[in-house]
Amino acid sequence: MMAVTKLVLIRHGESQWNHENRFTGWTDVELSAKGRTESKIAGKILKSAGYKFDVAYTSVLKRAINTLWYILTELDQVWLPVEKSWRLNERHYGALQGLNKAKTAAKYGDELVKQWRRSLAIIPPALTIDDQRFPGHDIRYAKLTANELPTTESLALTIDRVLPYWKENILPRMKNGERVIITAHGNSIRAMVKFLDNLSEEVITELNIPTGIPLVYEFDKNIQVINHYYLGNADEIA
Amino acid sequence: MMAVTKLVLIRHGESQWNHENRFTGWTDVELSAKGRTESKIAGKILKSAGYKFDVAYTSVLKRAINTLWYILTELDQVWLPVEKSWRLNERHYGALQGLNKAKTAAKYGDELVKQWRRSLAIIPPALTIDDQRFPGHDIRYAKLTANELPTTESLALTIDRVLPYWKENILPRMKNGERVIITAHGNSIRAMVKFLDNLSEEVITELNIPTGIPLVYEFDKNIQVINHYYLGNADEIA
Repeated sequence: MMAVTKLVLIRHGESQWNHENRFTGWTDVELSAKGRTESKIAGKILKSAGYKFDVAYTSVLKRAINTLWYILTELDQVWLPVEKSWRLNERHYGALQGLNKAKTAAKYGDELVKQWRRSLAIIPPALTIDDQRFPGHDIRYAKLTANELPTTESLALTIDRVLPYWKENILPRMKNGERVIITAHGNSIRAMVKFLDNLSEEVITELNIPTGIPLVYEFDKNIQVINHYYLGNADEIA
Repeated sequence: MMAVTKLVLIRHGESQWNHENRFTGWTDVELSAKGRTESKIAGKILKSAGYKFDVAYTSVLKRAINTLWYILTELDQVWLPVEKSWRLNERHYGALQGLNKAKTAAKYGDELVKQWRRSLAIIPPALTIDDQRFPGHDIRYAKLTANELPTTESLALTIDRVLPYWKENILPRMKNGERVIITAHGNSIRAMVKFLDNLSEEVITELNIPTGIPLVYEFDKNIQVINHYYLGNADEIA
């Protein structure tokens, strides 16, 4: 079946806290030097494969926004409309945000930490709302309702806030024939991939999204997925 | 009278063609090294003066977009909503685009070139629509109607396409209490300034907007201008 439209999903390049092996979540950390390079390479890969876009989506976190800027610069499409939404943010990691992953595993055990990181339903320990890490203290989230402001999120809760945005904002643009690129985060992309590929809990639990590699979905005229693949060097992706 | 809201206008930092003394118009040239530095300084000036914004507007030309990115990075507000519109583009310079200003003055005379550059109603020579410089060949303008696609523009024609965007998009946000920053171009900013300050033809003809200097307008509760001034070093501005 012939693809009539494509969607490109990209997890931001390596961040400073990916590099330091810390739980990040909604913490607004910078790309690392490696992450900036990964982002430029992603842009070059898309450019050399002839990609052009009509609209871009990203989160309100700088590691995803800056990744998009590097890509649009390589594509010579910085003029593209860009929609930023908290709904595309990384999963909120609650009280784990800022902690070192290895130290946390040493303290709580590998199995529990793996469940916090990968499982669908397990919820990491919550923040209290007087914690400076609570998003209610950040003006970029001033328009969110009390129910929308997370103190922690499982992957399932992340899916619950990503999918309405996908269905109400992104999908209509694709149905309108627009070519969409999304730069987002490991777990907001897992949310979209679980939906697009109708993945089981077992499969999504084991799925990791690499940083800075364009993931292409091809759709038929009914906007049903017919294929997906990573662009670029297969060895790097593995 | 007390200001209830402020607007910040900034002409992009020096571009490569400002540096080369060429007519630019809608040509999508890069910032020069000096222009990147000017943009970062503008961001630092705004940051040190405590400015925060709720929404940003810019053109679809990279010298204005990149200026905004440098400013938002300095302000740690890259998450801000950014609206890009062709209506905030530089005045279209028609068949002058790409020509050296000094050589053009030597050929046509200083007085005519000054009128092309500064007067309200004089229209530079038009492009033909088969000219590669005609915006109808550029996908970013694919949604413009035939009437909206310029082959050349006077300042008056630039005002005619800037002001509807000002009134329909920017002004309602200000009335809603939102703090607006606009990075744009010499003539799209002159269009807004003429309107805001109700300037005569004589005054606007002599008005030049410096690159990379924040121009602040203060408004009362009825969104009437009560004051305006440049931020930063007075010597540099002069």
